[in-house]
Amino acid sequence: MRCEVLAIGTELLLGQIVDTNSAWIGEQLALAGIDHHHQAKVGDNHGRIVGALRAALDRADAVIVCGGLGPTQDDITREAIAEVMGVDLEHHDEIAAVIRALFEARGRRMPDSNLRQAQVPRGATIIEQRRGTAPGLICPVPGGGVVYAVPGVPHEMQEMLTRSVLPDLRRRAGSTGAIRSRVLRTWGESESAVAELLSSRVAALDHGGSTTIAFQASGIEGIKVRITARADDDDRASALVAAEEAEVRAVLGDLVFGVDGESMEVAVGRLLVERGLTLAVAESLTGGLIASRLVGVAGASEFFTGGVVAYDPRVKHEVLGVPPGPVVSEATAKAMAEGVRAHLGATVGVSTTGVAGPDELEGQPPGTAWLGLALGDRVEAVEVRVPGDRERVRQYASISALDRLRRALRA
Amino acid sequence: MRCEVLAIGTELLLGQIVDTNSAWIGEQLALAGIDHHHQAKVGDNHGRIVGALRAALDRADAVIVCGGLGPTQDDITREAIAEVMGVDLEHHDEIAAVIRALFEARGRRMPDSNLRQAQVPRGATIIEQRRGTAPGLICPVPGGGVVYAVPGVPHEMQEMLTRSVLPDLRRRAGSTGAIRSRVLRTWGESESAVAELLSSRVAALDHGGSTTIAFQASGIEGIKVRITARADDDDRASALVAAEEAEVRAVLGDLVFGVDGESMEVAVGRLLVERGLTLAVAESLTGGLIASRLVGVAGASEFFTGGVVAYDPRVKHEVLGVPPGPVVSEATAKAMAEGVRAHLGATVGVSTTGVAGPDELEGQPPGTAWLGLALGDRVEAVEVRVPGDRERVRQYASISALDRLRRALRA
Repeated sequence: MRCEVLAIGTELLLGQIVDTNSAWIGEQLALAGIDHHHQAKVGDNHGRIVGALRAALDRADAVIVCGGLGPTQDDITREAIAEVMGVDLEHHDEIAAVIRALFEARGRRMPDSNLRQAQVPRGATIIEQRRGTAPGLICPVPGGGVVYAVPGVPHEMQEMLTRSVLPDLRRRAGSTGAIRSRVLRTWGESESAVAELLSSRVAALDHGGSTTIAFQASGIEGIKVRITARADDDDRASALVAAEEAEVRAVLGDLVFGVDGESMEVAVGRLLVERGLTLAVAESLTGGLIASRLVGVAGASEFFTGGVVAYDPRVKHEVLGVPPGPVVSEATAKAMAEGVRAHLGATVGVSTTGVAGPDELEGQPPGTAWLGLALGDRVEAVEVRVPGDRERVRQYASISALDRLRRALRA
Repeated sequence: MRCEVLAIGTELLLGQIVDTNSAWIGEQLALAGIDHHHQAKVGDNHGRIVGALRAALDRADAVIVCGGLGPTQDDITREAIAEVMGVDLEHHDEIAAVIRALFEARGRRMPDSNLRQAQVPRGATIIEQRRGTAPGLICPVPGGGVVYAVPGVPHEMQEMLTRSVLPDLRRRAGSTGAIRSRVLRTWGESESAVAELLSSRVAALDHGGSTTIAFQASGIEGIKVRITARADDDDRASALVAAEEAEVRAVLGDLVFGVDGESMEVAVGRLLVERGLTLAVAESLTGGLIASRLVGVAGASEFFTGGVVAYDPRVKHEVLGVPPGPVVSEATAKAMAEGVRAHLGATVGVSTTGVAGPDELEGQPPGTAWLGLALGDRVEAVEVRVPGDRERVRQYASISALDRLRRALRA
């Protein structure tokens, strides 16, 4: 089973929006074991969408088309797919009723233009919309291929792909029975190191069994380990995943910070709430990045007190009570963590100080970072060396500092 | 002249890296007036790169290939282009010498694998490398088309595209003589409003003249107005751009915050340094985003003192001296701006408080933001209503607050 991705939208070609959907879909296809060799983007142009669809179907068995399902005149994915299928569009009253009800629930009248979203190529199966107004489509095409149409809004697309498109693709790929999978998120080791740690598990599973392990780097956010199991029914597949998860966790231990979509800051927040602790951060090197990650967690007010961005050394000394001396140092990182905890009235303090670059500071090279932690009587700091440019150093130091707190909370 | 973009790399298909290069190149092509209808991505596979190149050349006159010029075995863009050209690869001693010198300048020995980067398809023109080790290539193909190969590292690609690829594309598009362009960055009005403001300028230029104006939305970072002029030589083209820039600035006034690659925080930083002022920020709604934007500016220590992320209301009251009362309010925003300025010892204070969502706060809907400013005797706050989800509300409020400071500093 080969599947391609086609993203639709003139705004993508013009660079007004960066297409993150294709990368997300590509990752899901890889983790599902579906071959995926091409991605393409075209604008809101009927002939070019039709041409791109036909080219993709020449190479692959399935195409996921993302975007162009909105209510306006330039949303023409439905028309293009109908042409490739060789059928007309039909109006579906029940889709129109659902969309009308969505508007009424928000106290608004449905504009007539939304009726376009009730047009469906004859012979297509509808994927019910749960987050937006546009239903998705599963469209058989002459020659045995299939085109899936999903919205371009990321959270609508992701929900529909997970719920409907990926299971349908797996069925067509000949995967019968139930499939369950779970992603264990790890941080602190490279992809090759995680793979090496789990090599005996991979070898144990590698005898035509129904459970598999796959690895994937996801930028600065760590390495994902996906456990997938196939069985005759859901319960058995879930049991296989749970059994393998226990094995993998026994090997990886503290490297695992979360499951599926959980970010590092979500994991940290949960541990803080469980322990009844509150966190304050003092940031020099990372300059507000840790705070903004934490504030991005829904419910952050339960565990996050606030932060001090101590960019000017005087702020370190006068506000946080850091003693005189070099700022890129263990003593400063420790004093910042203790100082911010006391200053903002939290029970835990985390700090960063270091050299983002491009120039040296206090004779230390770019990428030098001291990460401080004040947790109960424990006040400590560790030095890490971070590769990359200014932005990457700051991002990496942010997640490193959160990971250190996570491990300390679990200890 | 039609140009397509082909991004190379299995890591892009797997979703390990989001491809931002294609969006950037698409924007440059649009601003240069070059038609651009397709983008594609393929992995590090010889046959598929060759196939994608041939398909692109069937539709377009030029293809920009991004990535796969590195030194390792899976960097095979050079080989694929040679096959499409129908020629062999040749070793170029002078390229090898340049790469070797780059390594020696860093005190390292060049690995033999880097010699791959000295391989060039016969008949290709070399684009000198100035930021990385890989030279770019300009490759004529049978039938009159051209393939440009540039590195996948964004800052290397951008420099090479600007310096060499875009000028070469313009020449091939029949644009003779000199071309100069300048982007005026605006913030505070929609694309259609900016276009309407400048409609008389567009009409004045629309008589076959050699100067043009183009508009482009760039996400949350505002609307770009690009002025492009063609003339017989550089001096005349530059004079035409300067003359039109004066006309456009006379219309747009304070909407213009910077030119070309300047971000809002760079513009704010420059104004602060010019006036000998230092800035402290108090962030509730934006939770560290303003601070992290400011710290991202090289030389931020000249104008940025630091910040307080006042997420818990107690931090607002106890650390910043905000009086009791609703936190989503004018009074709180003003007190936060004054409080942080005094607390961190800066001369200017900026603050944000509001409702990121998804829930209401103090009876106010998500998207409600109060932006405070303390500048000399001037202490004030304005309310803005921001569309979108939690993340967008926070991003938009951050740039709004910086823009208000910018306008106040210019007043």
